[in-house]
Amino acid sequence: MIEQAAPGRVGDVRRRNLSLVLDSIARTGHAKPSRAQLAAGTGLTKAAVSSLVADLVESGLVAEVGLYRDGERGRPGQGLELSSRRGVVGMEINVDYLAVGLVDLGGNLRFSSTVESRNRGMKPDAVMKQLAGLADEAKAAAAAEDIAILGGGLAVPGLVDEKRNVVLSAPNLHWEHEQLEPGALLEGAPLGVTLSNEANSAALGELWYGGGPPDFLYVSGEVGVGGGVIIGSELFRGPGGSAGELGHIVVHPEGPACSCGGAGCLETFAGQEAIFEAAGIPGGSLGRRTELLLAALAAGESRAAHAVHDAGRYLGIALASSARLMDIEAVVLGGHFAVLGEWLRPALLASLERYAPGLLEPESLTVSGLEHSGTLLGAAGQVIRSVIESPFEFLPASKLA
Amino acid sequence: MIEQAAPGRVGDVRRRNLSLVLDSIARTGHAKPSRAQLAAGTGLTKAAVSSLVADLVESGLVAEVGLYRDGERGRPGQGLELSSRRGVVGMEINVDYLAVGLVDLGGNLRFSSTVESRNRGMKPDAVMKQLAGLADEAKAAAAAEDIAILGGGLAVPGLVDEKRNVVLSAPNLHWEHEQLEPGALLEGAPLGVTLSNEANSAALGELWYGGGPPDFLYVSGEVGVGGGVIIGSELFRGPGGSAGELGHIVVHPEGPACSCGGAGCLETFAGQEAIFEAAGIPGGSLGRRTELLLAALAAGESRAAHAVHDAGRYLGIALASSARLMDIEAVVLGGHFAVLGEWLRPALLASLERYAPGLLEPESLTVSGLEHSGTLLGAAGQVIRSVIESPFEFLPASKLA
Repeated sequence: MIEQAAPGRVGDVRRRNLSLVLDSIARTGHAKPSRAQLAAGTGLTKAAVSSLVADLVESGLVAEVGLYRDGERGRPGQGLELSSRRGVVGMEINVDYLAVGLVDLGGNLRFSSTVESRNRGMKPDAVMKQLAGLADEAKAAAAAEDIAILGGGLAVPGLVDEKRNVVLSAPNLHWEHEQLEPGALLEGAPLGVTLSNEANSAALGELWYGGGPPDFLYVSGEVGVGGGVIIGSELFRGPGGSAGELGHIVVHPEGPACSCGGAGCLETFAGQEAIFEAAGIPGGSLGRRTELLLAALAAGESRAAHAVHDAGRYLGIALASSARLMDIEAVVLGGHFAVLGEWLRPALLASLERYAPGLLEPESLTVSGLEHSGTLLGAAGQVIRSVIESPFEFLPASKLA
Repeated sequence: MIEQAAPGRVGDVRRRNLSLVLDSIARTGHAKPSRAQLAAGTGLTKAAVSSLVADLVESGLVAEVGLYRDGERGRPGQGLELSSRRGVVGMEINVDYLAVGLVDLGGNLRFSSTVESRNRGMKPDAVMKQLAGLADEAKAAAAAEDIAILGGGLAVPGLVDEKRNVVLSAPNLHWEHEQLEPGALLEGAPLGVTLSNEANSAALGELWYGGGPPDFLYVSGEVGVGGGVIIGSELFRGPGGSAGELGHIVVHPEGPACSCGGAGCLETFAGQEAIFEAAGIPGGSLGRRTELLLAALAAGESRAAHAVHDAGRYLGIALASSARLMDIEAVVLGGHFAVLGEWLRPALLASLERYAPGLLEPESLTVSGLEHSGTLLGAAGQVIRSVIESPFEFLPASKLA
């Protein structure tokens, strides 16, 4: 039973019901529910829903669209959707690129831009300055499409203290305890900019916008290998807050030294650079090296085949161990693991069969359809979720009394 | 704010408050709270607490004890404690022994008995028959001490379906999909007998009765190596329900075949038998072999030292990987890892330092003080927790109308 408050009284119940209705609209997604459908779905009266929707429309978070439902004629009905004129900027700093994406409240990527950038060993200030240029592109795109930016999410390949905007450790960038000021990237955005881990953001992007199941392990393949664990449609953070560090599972006790200070980590065999090196791909831009690797694989070159085989084998070991420990039954591969897809898969499946027979079904190992935009979507999506959970503060001032 | 219902009305609120008061008594433990202290701690009125306590005393779950508090003179005050005259039987089937323990509601192990038994490859019926003999000993002990048995918990070294009483897989016993009837071990006990995994039970035993912190990884060292993950003072079961299989984390890709069908698992290096074999300890009873191993270590025999060094090294790798994946910052070692304690520790710490420097502090690695009784306490404790959560059904019939 949902408690109902008198319309117009902005109390706790009304705050909660605003979020409930907004969440229902978000979950219904492309179905664009009517007020009557929202009332049926939430247990609220139609009168209460109408009043709540009026506030949400006035706040700019929800938009009405005319649409014909099955078999309807005459005047179109009114469907509701999260506004396409409110947006959040997802941003990503990675080892060899920077990226931004403008995501509207409905989760549509309206604009994106990626530049290659050698960020390893660069000072955070310099990287943030370059990222600010990209953020300006997103702002210009938003202005051109008349989208108001509510906030932003910035993902980095490392452990972060989200509350204090500190990158605790991003070994592949050579950053340790770096204080960032992500809010400066989007001056004036009411929700500011939140910092998050890249693999966690990509996992959430997969959950919310990539059709991910309620429980899965997302594997992020960049220069580093990261992981994001989704359990019960929530990010599993672990007691210390930084769970999912799949790239630093030890897969060979005599393996090479790792950027984390350890040795034999998955990343040393299956990270992007580890594969390029093992495959004998010369240095150059990420795009170029990827092309060369795929060409070498297509040509059946044995060094490339070996490198990808090893990466698949060690990824299989790490997934076997992860599945044993967390009893996770589905895996989504992203980043270069998605790009290498079918080249990687035979060795990965053979490894799982050898080290943990029967534990993970081949069909439970899928490749993300979002590719590199998963991180941007997830970084933005965390801010969109916070809007859905607290729409109250976007109400017109007259309702905030 | 706690809702309060009129005393005597056995509704949902009263059921919840019965549990609340019982839980407060359980948590206060040795302090034996007074009614006034319970009222202060729960937010209920003293009148409500008195009425609830009266029912709990009448049900036999709570007992009053006279005690002098600080500086009090004259007539002793009345303290409350979980009754020592209600008990639960913890039982354990392991690869080379069977054990039972009678645990009173306060968590005191009032009687225990262990027999060596070669259970590997034995039919479940034969093992259960032998265990029934031990359960009878526990019943006799309960009768002698005037303890009423409310139920029992049976722990096995394998994956279980707790609802259906099925051992899904216990490779070290050679059991696969075996239907058990644990309830037959304690005919007439009102709560029956629940089946659980051995390492999970031991982890819960450590949490409830061993002073374990709210977040830790418990490592069970028996013939098999198991794990139990406690997060937020709850057992972490994972999406599939069988999380914590630490023994089957792959620690060496060229390691030996494992009973699980995989290869290179931690258990193949750090399980009890693996250590005995590597140390050159001849076959025999578990107790005898353990004595021989400890004597060989004390004498500085290099094979024994190597075996324990390797076990510590590979345990360190598995803990490094686990801590990376789940971000768990404390580890409690049980079973033979507790027995080997100081012999194992140097190699374990060196391994953690090599593979995950700085991740786990040495002082966060502790040894269980409960040793083998942790599993019995945890198996029984799960039933005790269910009593605390639903004391209602133990109320006298007149209150159940």
